[in-house]
Amino acid sequence: MDPDALSKAFVDHYYSTFDTNRSGLSTLYQESSMLTFEGQKTQGSQNIVNKLTSLPFDQCKHTITTVDCQPSGPSGGMLVFVSGNLQLAGEQHALKFSQMFHLMPTPQGSFYVYNDIFRLNYA
Amino acid sequence: MDPDALSKAFVDHYYSTFDTNRSGLSTLYQESSMLTFEGQKTQGSQNIVNKLTSLPFDQCKHTITTVDCQPSGPSGGMLVFVSGNLQLAGEQHALKFSQMFHLMPTPQGSFYVYNDIFRLNYA
Repeated sequence: MDPDALSKAFVDHYYSTFDTNRSGLSTLYQESSMLTFEGQKTQGSQNIVNKLTSLPFDQCKHTITTVDCQPSGPSGGMLVFVSGNLQLAGEQHALKFSQMFHLMPTPQGSFYVYNDIFRLNYA
Repeated sequence: MDPDALSKAFVDHYYSTFDTNRSGLSTLYQESSMLTFEGQKTQGSQNIVNKLTSLPFDQCKHTITTVDCQPSGPSGGMLVFVSGNLQLAGEQHALKFSQMFHLMPTPQGSFYVYNDIFRLNYA
């Protein structure tokens, strides 16, 4: 699978899971995984999902504007850089966001999220 | 030097060089370095600087809003995620941008930019 197709598939899966079953994101992280969400740092799959499921909004919908990817080096990792809009239920205007993921290969031939940095770009 | 201070120092150096002596950025990249600028891919220090110096604006000023960093894994690299404003000479409104760098250590104890992804977030 070529890197662009792989990152697109990951992004589709990540945000559809976020929008429909946020706690299901736990399978995409491992104990070494790091999340920086609006400057707040969290580490480990369970802590990360606790953070994501305790955000002060229940229903939301991500719409993706751009996806860029690059190989991250000899470890076989991949950097995925996303920009898009986040629509919160009950809010009139969507928020712009940027997010980067560093995907690392698993022994099973899949990928997990090693680094995750999220920022809102208030328009 | 702690990672937050290191990434802040890198970001200050990178954007002040970009705004005052863009061709001087060549020393921050190596032959393996990759740049994706608004979806356009370039590789190698010289090609990257050729791309950056041929952008359709001469004078500009970056203002940084946020800097986040995380270690990228056992290779000793560091991910730096930046958001800010880009003011072009003669334009009334600044453009919002997001950019991520993957810094890799050199044998001399410094860092170079291995990955660089830049996107404008049109407000």
